[in-house]
Amino acid sequence: MNMSRTRERLVVIGGDAAGMSAASQARRLKSPDELEIVAFERGHFTSYSACGIPYWVGGDVTDRDELIARTPEEHRARGIDLRLRTEVTELDPDGQRVRARDLESGEESWTSYDKLVIATGARPIRPDMPGVDAAGVHGVQTLDDGQALLDTLEGTRGRRAVVVGAGYIGVEMAEALIKRGYEVTVVNRGSEPMSTLDPDMGRLVHDAMEGLGITMVNDAEVTKILTGDGGTSLLERSRELGGGRVGAVVTQDREFAADVVVLGIGVRPETALAKAAGLPLGPHGGLLTDRSMRVRGHEDIWSGGDCVEVLDLVSGQERHVPLGTHANKHGQVIGTNVGGGYATFPGVVGTAVSKVCDLEIARTGLREKDAQRVGLRFEAVTIESTSRAGYYPNASPMTVKMLAEHRTGRLLGVQIVGREGAGKRVDIAAVALTAGLTVERMTALDLGYAPPFSPVWDPVLVAARKAAAKVRGSL
Amino acid sequence: MNMSRTRERLVVIGGDAAGMSAASQARRLKSPDELEIVAFERGHFTSYSACGIPYWVGGDVTDRDELIARTPEEHRARGIDLRLRTEVTELDPDGQRVRARDLESGEESWTSYDKLVIATGARPIRPDMPGVDAAGVHGVQTLDDGQALLDTLEGTRGRRAVVVGAGYIGVEMAEALIKRGYEVTVVNRGSEPMSTLDPDMGRLVHDAMEGLGITMVNDAEVTKILTGDGGTSLLERSRELGGGRVGAVVTQDREFAADVVVLGIGVRPETALAKAAGLPLGPHGGLLTDRSMRVRGHEDIWSGGDCVEVLDLVSGQERHVPLGTHANKHGQVIGTNVGGGYATFPGVVGTAVSKVCDLEIARTGLREKDAQRVGLRFEAVTIESTSRAGYYPNASPMTVKMLAEHRTGRLLGVQIVGREGAGKRVDIAAVALTAGLTVERMTALDLGYAPPFSPVWDPVLVAARKAAAKVRGSL
Repeated sequence: MNMSRTRERLVVIGGDAAGMSAASQARRLKSPDELEIVAFERGHFTSYSACGIPYWVGGDVTDRDELIARTPEEHRARGIDLRLRTEVTELDPDGQRVRARDLESGEESWTSYDKLVIATGARPIRPDMPGVDAAGVHGVQTLDDGQALLDTLEGTRGRRAVVVGAGYIGVEMAEALIKRGYEVTVVNRGSEPMSTLDPDMGRLVHDAMEGLGITMVNDAEVTKILTGDGGTSLLERSRELGGGRVGAVVTQDREFAADVVVLGIGVRPETALAKAAGLPLGPHGGLLTDRSMRVRGHEDIWSGGDCVEVLDLVSGQERHVPLGTHANKHGQVIGTNVGGGYATFPGVVGTAVSKVCDLEIARTGLREKDAQRVGLRFEAVTIESTSRAGYYPNASPMTVKMLAEHRTGRLLGVQIVGREGAGKRVDIAAVALTAGLTVERMTALDLGYAPPFSPVWDPVLVAARKAAAKVRGSL
Repeated sequence: MNMSRTRERLVVIGGDAAGMSAASQARRLKSPDELEIVAFERGHFTSYSACGIPYWVGGDVTDRDELIARTPEEHRARGIDLRLRTEVTELDPDGQRVRARDLESGEESWTSYDKLVIATGARPIRPDMPGVDAAGVHGVQTLDDGQALLDTLEGTRGRRAVVVGAGYIGVEMAEALIKRGYEVTVVNRGSEPMSTLDPDMGRLVHDAMEGLGITMVNDAEVTKILTGDGGTSLLERSRELGGGRVGAVVTQDREFAADVVVLGIGVRPETALAKAAGLPLGPHGGLLTDRSMRVRGHEDIWSGGDCVEVLDLVSGQERHVPLGTHANKHGQVIGTNVGGGYATFPGVVGTAVSKVCDLEIARTGLREKDAQRVGLRFEAVTIESTSRAGYYPNASPMTVKMLAEHRTGRLLGVQIVGREGAGKRVDIAAVALTAGLTVERMTALDLGYAPPFSPVWDPVLVAARKAAAKVRGSL
């Protein structure tokens, strides 16, 4: 007991990117003699790439273990007391302790902490509708989810897949299912796919996905999921529920036969524990932290990853941005601070990139409606250009939309839809947003140019020129 | 004559990117009734992509005309009085006039101007050595050069090519000649190819080029070029000069049989006219301008493109950076100002990107020796990462070197060598340099992440983390 007094104990709730990055970084800075680290994870895996699940399902990645950055054994070998299949059920900030349940034995016990990291992640939105629990209806949030979907795909004779939702997960799963040889229908509540883009840019995604053979259904609200035998007659599949296999997805006005259904509707911060403990939550349901990723008002609690809200540096408001790249950065910052160092997470600008087959989709900063909501007046321009010099082989078309603040000309956002080479160009705008550059200044950016890489005016420069002219013209 | 008094005359010397961009932009802003535009070009072509010549020679571009952005006829149709094959031989700033010679008729005459744009470009360095004028020895600066080289390649039975110089032009021509089926030897004066990189990064290019089957010869000074019959015996080819075809390239200690020789040694500003007229030149022989691209001390003369020096925003000193992307920007700025608008060219950060076969090479900012020369102490780090998530198909290795200022941690430069997806990542650093970001701030950049596009920590972020740690550790 003397030893437990001389060293501190760090408790980590959640064994994925944010939690285990924090634990690993703290371990790098503090030896086991100085800091005991206990990590609770309710699942079977640690430190895996949930973002990689669509590529595993699609067959680009053949082995699940490739998605695991660090196994439980590797964490334990580094001196982290990792407890798998153990769910934290209660958090007592005043008592500095958490209660955890061993999911195998059902036993519960309290563990005290000196410092706590909450990295409980996000939970997928699973609509409360009839049939959503039928066999053949899958989320794709965890490795376990991915394995269950693969098992279904291998055991299914039918080839009709319906993806519910047309955000990143939805379009990536559409690609995965196309690669598996399915006829894919994407059912989307919005007016266009990729609601993280403005609708005019989403339209380009819509058209391209149809060009890939995907059936796109917009403005469609799924009302129920029917079970059935997978036959062709709708009558045969009309037995609702009953515990059978999925047979069709029903919207307000149509019905889509389905042998497998993937739910890709998005996620919400998993903050039930934190909420019950009275920790501060933001408007999106995520934990609120300061710049050091410390939970506001709590000296001894940090949080990061998909369960927190982050500052959007462009709008000045909090957002929920569940992305692995942020979770890793949060974990790094938390582990550094817990380990006695100094690090901050300044915020995000809202960059995201995705692809469906050879279509690349990227965005950063504010959409039109974001700018409107936060009181920023803007000029918007859209240009067409190419990924390489027009005369160079495989130059492919690219559409760039750019928003600049009225009068000041400060860059507010960029959206890009194109083929190879389109997606990562958004990084130019991400850095420009971080630095608060105006579109006028951006017209002179010294970007890499050679015919295989870019036209002599990079598409981002072409957009900046048009935006700058519009800002000048509207002064 | 009344009419010539009421409208101004703009004279442009040089019909390529900078000159014709300036003319076109001025024309957009001023009608022919307001501004007469006369442009002199000594060659046969206007507004072409010299950067595209290696890809035309290599066969990626099949038609020379694809490299021409705007033909003489198109310029004339827009109201520009373009005079091809007309060389300006004298410039009289006090008299506001230029003397031009019609290269066909030999006639000379003076043309007065109200405003003048000097866009005389650069001339290739052609070493003064025996044999350099032999048939089969080619520069690749102009479309005419490219055509001459292609004619040689088609008329040559031998398959041995020697490229003199291992900068951008040299490595791009090496690729072109490999694609044409030649055995390629690159003879390089420096210790490693790509002297625009630090030698440790140049070494990676060296190794990769050898892996592509190119023979790399470093530390080699070409002393003469031998003519001969292209046979295998050196004795047979030992007749020096004599006006025959090239037979071998001779260095201080070796001899390389050659059926064709390409000179890719670099260029110098073409400023003989400006020098004779007493205009201000910088240490690299280029014209010195202000931020509006006006020649310093001359209200009515502008200059841009390969004949000017530009401000390096990182070092604070002037550099000569002959790149089409700058020339186009300069022309745009000049044309705007000449046309009565307002635009500036703030300077460069030194970004360049190139490739040889599937090897991508990029740099921006300062090399180690640049930083030393301008009195900046730095920390340098090099990291290995991959272009995509490690588990995603075709993830390829990438090496990133990063320099940060000692103490302040301000980013000073980035060099990248890798395969697909490596080159344009340098744009992240180019924008960060423009904004003066520290490497510590860069560790939190919100860059696009998805497994097909990047590891969860983008290679640039990995380098920034290592550089930031080194800056902290060395305070």
